[in-house]
Amino acid sequence: MLHFDSDYMRGAHPEVLRRLVGTNLEQTVGYGCDGYTAQAEKLILEACGLENTGKVVFLVGGTQTNATVIDSFLERRQGVICAETGHINVHEAGAVEFTGHKVLTLPSHEGRICPRELESYLQEFYKDETWEHMVAPGMVYISFPTEVGTLYTLSQLEEISAVCRKYELTLYLDGARLGYGLASDGCDVTLRDIARICDVFYIGGTKCGTLFGEAVVVRDASGWKHSLSAVKQHGALLAKGRLQGVQFEALFTDGLYLKISRNAIDKAMRLKAGFVAAGYELYKDSPTNQQFFVLPNGKIDELMKVATFELWGPRGEERTPVRFVTDWATTDAEIDELLGYL
Amino acid sequence: MLHFDSDYMRGAHPEVLRRLVGTNLEQTVGYGCDGYTAQAEKLILEACGLENTGKVVFLVGGTQTNATVIDSFLERRQGVICAETGHINVHEAGAVEFTGHKVLTLPSHEGRICPRELESYLQEFYKDETWEHMVAPGMVYISFPTEVGTLYTLSQLEEISAVCRKYELTLYLDGARLGYGLASDGCDVTLRDIARICDVFYIGGTKCGTLFGEAVVVRDASGWKHSLSAVKQHGALLAKGRLQGVQFEALFTDGLYLKISRNAIDKAMRLKAGFVAAGYELYKDSPTNQQFFVLPNGKIDELMKVATFELWGPRGEERTPVRFVTDWATTDAEIDELLGYL
Amino acid sequence: MLHFDSDYMRGAHPEVLRRLVGTNLEQTVGYGCDGYTAQAEKLILEACGLENTGKVVFLVGGTQTNATVIDSFLERRQGVICAETGHINVHEAGAVEFTGHKVLTLPSHEGRICPRELESYLQEFYKDETWEHMVAPGMVYISFPTEVGTLYTLSQLEEISAVCRKYELTLYLDGARLGYGLASDGCDVTLRDIARICDVFYIGGTKCGTLFGEAVVVRDASGWKHSLSAVKQHGALLAKGRLQGVQFEALFTDGLYLKISRNAIDKAMRLKAGFVAAGYELYKDSPTNQQFFVLPNGKIDELMKVATFELWGPRGEERTPVRFVTDWATTDAEIDELLGYL
Amino acid sequence: MLHFDSDYMRGAHPEVLRRLVGTNLEQTVGYGCDGYTAQAEKLILEACGLENTGKVVFLVGGTQTNATVIDSFLERRQGVICAETGHINVHEAGAVEFTGHKVLTLPSHEGRICPRELESYLQEFYKDETWEHMVAPGMVYISFPTEVGTLYTLSQLEEISAVCRKYELTLYLDGARLGYGLASDGCDVTLRDIARICDVFYIGGTKCGTLFGEAVVVRDASGWKHSLSAVKQHGALLAKGRLQGVQFEALFTDGLYLKISRNAIDKAMRLKAGFVAAGYELYKDSPTNQQFFVLPNGKIDELMKVATFELWGPRGEERTPVRFVTDWATTDAEIDELLGYL
Repeated sequence: MLHFDSDYMRGAHPEVLRRLVGTNLEQTVGYGCDGYTAQAEKLILEACGLENTGKVVFLVGGTQTNATVIDSFLERRQGVICAETGHINVHEAGAVEFTGHKVLTLPSHEGRICPRELESYLQEFYKDETWEHMVAPGMVYISFPTEVGTLYTLSQLEEISAVCRKYELTLYLDGARLGYGLASDGCDVTLRDIARICDVFYIGGTKCGTLFGEAVVVRDASGWKHSLSAVKQHGALLAKGRLQGVQFEALFTDGLYLKISRNAIDKAMRLKAGFVAAGYELYKDSPTNQQFFVLPNGKIDELMKVATFELWGPRGEERTPVRFVTDWATTDAEIDELLGYL
Repeated sequence: MLHFDSDYMRGAHPEVLRRLVGTNLEQTVGYGCDGYTAQAEKLILEACGLENTGKVVFLVGGTQTNATVIDSFLERRQGVICAETGHINVHEAGAVEFTGHKVLTLPSHEGRICPRELESYLQEFYKDETWEHMVAPGMVYISFPTEVGTLYTLSQLEEISAVCRKYELTLYLDGARLGYGLASDGCDVTLRDIARICDVFYIGGTKCGTLFGEAVVVRDASGWKHSLSAVKQHGALLAKGRLQGVQFEALFTDGLYLKISRNAIDKAMRLKAGFVAAGYELYKDSPTNQQFFVLPNGKIDELMKVATFELWGPRGEERTPVRFVTDWATTDAEIDELLGYL
Repeated sequence: MLHFDSDYMRGAHPEVLRRLVGTNLEQTVGYGCDGYTAQAEKLILEACGLENTGKVVFLVGGTQTNATVIDSFLERRQGVICAETGHINVHEAGAVEFTGHKVLTLPSHEGRICPRELESYLQEFYKDETWEHMVAPGMVYISFPTEVGTLYTLSQLEEISAVCRKYELTLYLDGARLGYGLASDGCDVTLRDIARICDVFYIGGTKCGTLFGEAVVVRDASGWKHSLSAVKQHGALLAKGRLQGVQFEALFTDGLYLKISRNAIDKAMRLKAGFVAAGYELYKDSPTNQQFFVLPNGKIDELMKVATFELWGPRGEERTPVRFVTDWATTDAEIDELLGYL
Repeated sequence: MLHFDSDYMRGAHPEVLRRLVGTNLEQTVGYGCDGYTAQAEKLILEACGLENTGKVVFLVGGTQTNATVIDSFLERRQGVICAETGHINVHEAGAVEFTGHKVLTLPSHEGRICPRELESYLQEFYKDETWEHMVAPGMVYISFPTEVGTLYTLSQLEEISAVCRKYELTLYLDGARLGYGLASDGCDVTLRDIARICDVFYIGGTKCGTLFGEAVVVRDASGWKHSLSAVKQHGALLAKGRLQGVQFEALFTDGLYLKISRNAIDKAMRLKAGFVAAGYELYKDSPTNQQFFVLPNGKIDELMKVATFELWGPRGEERTPVRFVTDWATTDAEIDELLGYL
């Protein structure tokens, strides 16, 4: 059976695992105060160009990271703006509201928010004399890549950032699949661009090579004091914090993170080309590791005997959108076998 | 340098790690819906004698587990009773209050609450006609072993349980170091006793052989419906849930959990005997893997050159209590070396 | 200056005030345990046909009532469904999210949700295998009248109720302006219908004759045990609870509530007829005490010299929607004067 | 029957009520944006000596005020320090924890905290290297008068304030009975002292002359921006906000607040003298409107036939502490009658 359901189906990249195994019996202090974590932070800040100003906070998973960061950067009375399709709005069991904050939605344009619509929303909001009776926006949440595999261009990010600065909003980027965005062909954005443009973002490990772990990068370290307390209060502090340090040190040594992310893109592009060549329609034209097609229901049933993948929404009368996901470990042989069934 | 600071300084037990490595490149569905997790649940329920009625929920760390379980079993208006020294009261950054619940404290008797004081508290509480203006207790939290290494006897647990049933309180046992309690010499309590007596408890992995992970055991599965939503809402759901399954499957195969826990006890007893033989005073007489002594400050300074361990409270004028902790991996050689410095 | 901004601009109906004055120096126990409150509860339950089964809980204001009721009836993991235009979604400063619950929105049809869209939403929700990763709906919130002055028909309420029962959702009706709905011409719903159909609803006092106060009616008293604790925890318990009792006793003696509500409708209908006769366009055709017109901007500027009223949204190029609100105290003379300016 | 249970058993002082009645049919804008509220704020700030710097926020009741202020001034990770007997710790149904903050307790010295114990607590806290794993104190809460009727001296308040400034803690004073403290004989503290020393405090109306309402005074207005949003989010915003304005305007015109508070003290002193003269023992020697005696159980039973008052704790074997409370309306005739039964 082939598996294209998601990018968190395997364990860690062999090099990451090798490091975990190699350090397993060492004894270090807990809670991320160890040398591996310090070294991982150093490597990440260098990669981001934030050596002297930034800070890295390691968390365990994506929903946890979103809830902890959003709650930590917002005032109590504030909410977070995102696209209707934003992960925090639809697929996190209300973890953001659980901490007391409303998710404020803008229309989704293939997973993206539009800078002009953002500005227009903010103008209307503050034009209303009764705005204090409503939830004031305090942050903009964007995903890169988005939940449907698309990317923002550099100029789109700059425009969103300009609006955020004008209205004093924190700009937060969810990089659960950051590597798969940065490594894709059309991407004109670098890690340093993101680190320069966003106030806070995270580099996803879980989907890009680690067993678990997300590295939150804060552009200005003074923006998140006492992060350890906040992380612990959210139940997100790992006793053996070095596990995150060891894994991210491996990922940020010799460019491993982007290298293994690129594999997913190569395989995704072969997969897309194969489906298109076989005459199937794209549901979204995604440059990243999630690929969306519209397939006849008969073909879906046939493929499901040999591969796992997700229906993207309810089954249609005759045809249904589907999603296939590649990852850092997907092989050409797997793609060949899948395409052979088309 | 020797390390006796805590029991979460190393990675995983080699057998646990071997299983993680062996399954690393397999692809499984996420969020604990995989076969390894199912198998781990089965093994744990068997060990607990709860095959047909219980349920296991895997979480990542201790504070997270406490906050998630307590919030899930309490009504909004209710609080949780614990000893003043209870970990949730003193060392979890307010994670329980963060979810809206007050921690109600009883006196600590070497880390334990007293069943009679518990009953007396409840009697007084409900005798007060204005009790609805106060926080109603909904749960009793106990630690086994306690934060100072002591244990409840079977009859103490039965007594506490009887009070809980009388007053309709959920009895929750924090087993962060459960193995080190069950494996200790004086312990007259078995895992099955705990599973029979408590409504919910957890079997700690982080401190007893895993990289991370705590297994929450619910005696009556119907007592925690939709736990996945609750866990996710608390930011505690691991994408690669199988990692917890694989690790706990290893721990609950061939009695590994108690076997490796026993090592910590053997070493702790040698350590205690050595200190006592060298004329040092016990601060607490602990039967488990945490050992507490009162040492002259000069001796402390001397030992700190060769070993790490914790001062247990502020440094005294002449002498100060200290804590040494052993774990599943502590060796006789380490104990020998330490005792050699006395 | 005439005032048509809202229905909470004056104090209490003279009869309500007379009762407050008459009882002012009496001494009673606090927190709603007094005889006036008991009597008000009795009168309300009789008016609702819930003498033997129901329960009344008095709160101070609307947002507070919504937050307290919603939080009390939902499980932690659940959210509340409402129309996009629902007051809890747009104008309560995030009070519902503040207590940890997501507001889930359906399209607004002149302020109403559609029973078929509700059912369709629920079907799709539970059809999705990953629904436990999302916020499960636990309640439906409707406003009667809605925020734009419209009403549900009896059959619409019955249909919504049927869906709620099928999916085990609590049906909650926000009756901030309940009197103005029940007293309106087209209304085919009675207070008893609402009490029979809804699980919980509130009878608004603030906008219909009291200084403040909302009476929450719970159909099945066992559905909200320990409400005093919940109310206090939400900061909503009034020390001099009898003030609510005295006021609602007055309102529910000799049908005062509906009688004074009817005045607002009479005046609103005269106001509507006058605007229409003067050739102005209705923005919404409301049968209740809120009336919406589209006026030329010049006319708006002119009227604003003599009367206060609200622009309903941003000022348009040439014309802008406006809202005029009548209440229990609006006089024919006020209407005459206003219409004289058209 | 005589009533000495509490000071919230009657309605409003006649002058306050007269003003409510006199303004009842006026129409004003809502939510405290009216002229009466502005005038009340002006009078209060003048009385406090904070004309140019301070701000007043009106809330409805005491528990609500505590929860809203504490949550607004604390960071998420912080808790509030108070005496074990502090109202927020024991009698507010967990309203502070409900908003996510831990109540940290110090020993109670007749209801007061000790400045030296406060400083010592803070020193120990920050001396612990692991303090970020605990709840960091962000505020000190004191009651004036305390829950047992005692007062802080000016120098005690200055000392507490000095510690707060040193450790960057907000000093918050709960003045539910503030008038009864300021008007008492031994009190060497003025309203201006409190306004100078505390960062935020409230002037209680509910117990001192109003139907309801508490006036929160913020020394530096910039310390609580967007208070309207916070108040609304807490469900504490009154639609007819002018009701608070009208009542407090009356209380702060011609010194009414202190004048009527003084009545309670005069009557309390007569009551105390009478009990003492009759040979009964003081339980606490309170200079304010709450008086505490230890009475033989037989005498209690006898008095309960003619007067209501509170047992202060569980009934003892032979004797039990009791509390009698006077208020702004207590008459000499009532005191005479009560003393006649001794």
